[in-house]
Amino acid sequence: MKYKAFHKLSYGLYIIATRLNGENAGYIGNTAFQVTSDPPKIAISCHKKNASADKILQSKIFSLSVLKKESSTSLIGEFGFMSGSEVDKFRNIETKTASTGAPILLDSAVAWFDCNVVSTHDVGSHILIIGEVADSEVISDDEPLTYDYYREKYKMLAPKNAPTYIEKDKLDEEEATAIPENKPENKSKPESKVEKKETNVASSYTCTICGFQYNPEEGDPTMGIQPGTPFEDLPDDYKCPICNAGKDYFKEN
Amino acid sequence: MKYKAFHKLSYGLYIIATRLNGENAGYIGNTAFQVTSDPPKIAISCHKKNASADKILQSKIFSLSVLKKESSTSLIGEFGFMSGSEVDKFRNIETKTASTGAPILLDSAVAWFDCNVVSTHDVGSHILIIGEVADSEVISDDEPLTYDYYREKYKMLAPKNAPTYIEKDKLDEEEATAIPENKPENKSKPESKVEKKETNVASSYTCTICGFQYNPEEGDPTMGIQPGTPFEDLPDDYKCPICNAGKDYFKEN
Repeated sequence: MKYKAFHKLSYGLYIIATRLNGENAGYIGNTAFQVTSDPPKIAISCHKKNASADKILQSKIFSLSVLKKESSTSLIGEFGFMSGSEVDKFRNIETKTASTGAPILLDSAVAWFDCNVVSTHDVGSHILIIGEVADSEVISDDEPLTYDYYREKYKMLAPKNAPTYIEKDKLDEEEATAIPENKPENKSKPESKVEKKETNVASSYTCTICGFQYNPEEGDPTMGIQPGTPFEDLPDDYKCPICNAGKDYFKEN
Repeated sequence: MKYKAFHKLSYGLYIIATRLNGENAGYIGNTAFQVTSDPPKIAISCHKKNASADKILQSKIFSLSVLKKESSTSLIGEFGFMSGSEVDKFRNIETKTASTGAPILLDSAVAWFDCNVVSTHDVGSHILIIGEVADSEVISDDEPLTYDYYREKYKMLAPKNAPTYIEKDKLDEEEATAIPENKPENKSKPESKVEKKETNVASSYTCTICGFQYNPEEGDPTMGIQPGTPFEDLPDDYKCPICNAGKDYFKEN
């Protein structure tokens, strides 16, 4: 089996949210899709350990906000890699309450759906939650964010509870045994690593929490870090722009 | 509810195929997605009236071939809008047999998955079929075809049995009540139609089977029709490049 094949499946990226006992909860997901047209129903695949999913099962409502292409990395990081018990994910974002009571994102979304849970289906580690769409709206002409764009742009791994999570080791193994090609991803092959060190070029670093790669040639403009800044010279309070992990969580490639 | 919101969900496009009693069957689908990572499982949403879906339920195997961006319109048309009882959809395409016995497309695919059905879930008009991935492979570096690209390029409607099918009337109604914008889609509004006729510009025509729009300014290069050819001047044996419907199935916009 080639795990890279899974990267050829196309998805969008969504904030899936609910409201239970007066509190908002939500997470970022790519596996959301229409399963029937009349009446329109949407399925989401949630890990059974996902706290927001548990709240959706209790509240029986969820909203799906379709993220726009240029959504902020901190929004993606918090909803993708942090728990609602650590941080109030909704503290800085503009929302409105849909007819079911679920919160809808306004500033980073191009469209939204408001759903009532009509059935659930156990598929192993995950549960498929089917929602009948009570209401939907287009709120921006911006292009929607695709999972492919997000993964390529931020060189990201999926969160561990995502249906599309693949262990980095499995991908690295495929990479190492692949026929060499003139592709940027081959930079991370062991041979290139040795080469890099010999020529004393600053190393790139990977966030072990979310897989984000810090490339010193590019810097990290979203965090005000100039291109050409070696990882070692980053301020001590530098945090991963995706998941907010500190410098200690990064390892050299 | 705004039906246009459903167009903001991102999908790929896939040939979903099986083999039953020595015969191949397949259809084109956009609702295929990974639902668990360990073991990897893929869900497809099939209309209960879809003949290929019925064969998948009997054979308990299916393959998913991920279409490449520049797949031929005739492939899409035949697998999307024709029945296996009318035409042998596999007659002109190169396939190989996967380990389960399901056929895999080789020339129009960038990757494939070979799956054993492990569960099915009734969601109304459609059934969710969950397959555990037995094998997968990447066979091309070409970009995968997205549903968005396909819909924009061919101005297509989804086949009637697709989970994402929306009646054209519902979309037209939203269009007619929308605040006018400088967008090409507003060309089809009633006001513009009248205007067009007054200035004696050749009309565009829509295929009533699949929704493909013939635009005389663009012609139909895939069928050897030069830009600037009015619909009336098309040869009598002209067929819709998507679904092969004859000229009689087109209506003036």
